[in-house]
Amino acid sequence: MRAIVLRGPGRISLEDRPDPEPGPGEALIDVTCSGICGTDLQLARGYMDFTGIPGHEFTGVVSKVNSHADRVLLGARVTGEINLGCEECGACAEGLSRHCVRRRVLGILKKDGALAGKVTLPVRNLHVLPDSISDEQGVFVEPVAAAFEILDQVAVTAFHRVLVMGDGRLGLLIAQALATRGCGPTLLGRHEAKLSLARSLGLATAREDDEPPAPCYDIVVEATGSANGLDLALGYVRPRGTVVMKTTCEGSTSFAAWKAVVNEVTLVGSRCGRFEPAIQALATGRVKVDGLVSARLPLEEGLAGFRLAAETSTLKVILHAAG
Amino acid sequence: MRAIVLRGPGRISLEDRPDPEPGPGEALIDVTCSGICGTDLQLARGYMDFTGIPGHEFTGVVSKVNSHADRVLLGARVTGEINLGCEECGACAEGLSRHCVRRRVLGILKKDGALAGKVTLPVRNLHVLPDSISDEQGVFVEPVAAAFEILDQVAVTAFHRVLVMGDGRLGLLIAQALATRGCGPTLLGRHEAKLSLARSLGLATAREDDEPPAPCYDIVVEATGSANGLDLALGYVRPRGTVVMKTTCEGSTSFAAWKAVVNEVTLVGSRCGRFEPAIQALATGRVKVDGLVSARLPLEEGLAGFRLAAETSTLKVILHAAG
Repeated sequence: MRAIVLRGPGRISLEDRPDPEPGPGEALIDVTCSGICGTDLQLARGYMDFTGIPGHEFTGVVSKVNSHADRVLLGARVTGEINLGCEECGACAEGLSRHCVRRRVLGILKKDGALAGKVTLPVRNLHVLPDSISDEQGVFVEPVAAAFEILDQVAVTAFHRVLVMGDGRLGLLIAQALATRGCGPTLLGRHEAKLSLARSLGLATAREDDEPPAPCYDIVVEATGSANGLDLALGYVRPRGTVVMKTTCEGSTSFAAWKAVVNEVTLVGSRCGRFEPAIQALATGRVKVDGLVSARLPLEEGLAGFRLAAETSTLKVILHAAG
Repeated sequence: MRAIVLRGPGRISLEDRPDPEPGPGEALIDVTCSGICGTDLQLARGYMDFTGIPGHEFTGVVSKVNSHADRVLLGARVTGEINLGCEECGACAEGLSRHCVRRRVLGILKKDGALAGKVTLPVRNLHVLPDSISDEQGVFVEPVAAAFEILDQVAVTAFHRVLVMGDGRLGLLIAQALATRGCGPTLLGRHEAKLSLARSLGLATAREDDEPPAPCYDIVVEATGSANGLDLALGYVRPRGTVVMKTTCEGSTSFAAWKAVVNEVTLVGSRCGRFEPAIQALATGRVKVDGLVSARLPLEEGLAGFRLAAETSTLKVILHAAG
């Protein structure tokens, strides 16, 4: 199969690789299309010291299983949860393999990912996509789940004033996810095209270079992807309010921690989420993603896809498997 | 009256000052004794750009009131809440003058404090001390309230594994406050004398230079007073656990924010608390403070008190008003 391969900081190539073999309890999935995520760009720069095939957003078709019981999945159109727990520890026993300390993570940690012709995953990680979700929309299930994770962590109601910082891929998904709770979030960004897209999705927007928002928000979601986002968030949140942290920048982040102490702000780290609410939101159109696809390329042009994904104006680049 | 006065970074003096006059709704309090807090040491170095009389931990006797209705307080032994809200905004209306954006703070922000012979406070800020609380114990009501604030913010039960970082004044009070919930907290520190005191109070202890604690704690309270404490705390807390932030260091704090995101850790800023639970804990002996008094000096020797309070081995320095 063809695959994008990372071999260290800045070393990215397109290669022929042997098809992976599904292990016990695993399925082989023929990848239909896959997305390039901000994390993939960071991995290519050396984040997590990852080497191998990146990619954790995909839609594919199950082409091989090892267990007779799993044969029902053959031919099914699926996407998959990206955390592979040890299934032996307490976290896994609680259904929280996302926090298993021995976990592998698809295309991120000790597990080859989906920017390739084929990928393997444990059958328990797979989610069958309903017909109302297209192949390209299926690529968004994972990031939409990360957006909905916030609603599993923080109570958001129509009575809350909510600010989402960052008009990138994740910010646009988060604002839509939070809007399902009736809070009418404001998306704060700096790119007119992205803010215009947000408004076409029914979201309120504000520009960073306008009057800065008053420190009046009950909930601020920091999804700028910038190291200074957290410090800025402390200027927007009200005393006793909540800042949701979505940005993962390598190394250290500096912020005025004393402000969080004095104003008794709660900071909530937020990463991956359950797939079920994301699939339902996409299937019912409560979260719309078609406008976020900036480019479609064949997998064979994946390296150009990485360059394109790194451009500020790009939202999501999707790679389609050949034929 | 005699008073300790701050006039800018490093400029501290003992001076004669006119007695303050209680305004409408205020009481004049003859200070019996007052404590020097870590915040006072920071103020003396320039924190908050405070100038004036510091001091926000005190016991005193009400000597003058302006309203006939308040005459019942004359002669009462009191301490007082340190935040003076505007009493007009939403925060004040909710009883949260601690978070009024226009608040003044006794001895910290736009309001002369209690390291003096006399001090004024609104009558609504005063709490009458029961007989079972000594004058010196009354000085601890404010910091004990800051310790109990954590229990107003985070659910702590006997089922939680709890680590308190920092064997200073505040850490020793926090560990005792959390212990009232049956969680058996471990106090992590580096000073054998302070850890020994902690053990005499029935607390479990661990030394920083021993085997570092595993990242297994449900709740970690960061009360080291050091800028690197927050980053260390992320190494002790379990995935999805809670770090309570008590340290206020001037300027920026650096930490591995990505760890908080990846492990979905919640960070809770925590400052001042309600006085009621603190008064009850001191009155019933559930929190013990007598062992924390490192030195007693007359107010006249207050500058020596500040030098003593800055020494690592010191816990609490208490200044007594002259006869």
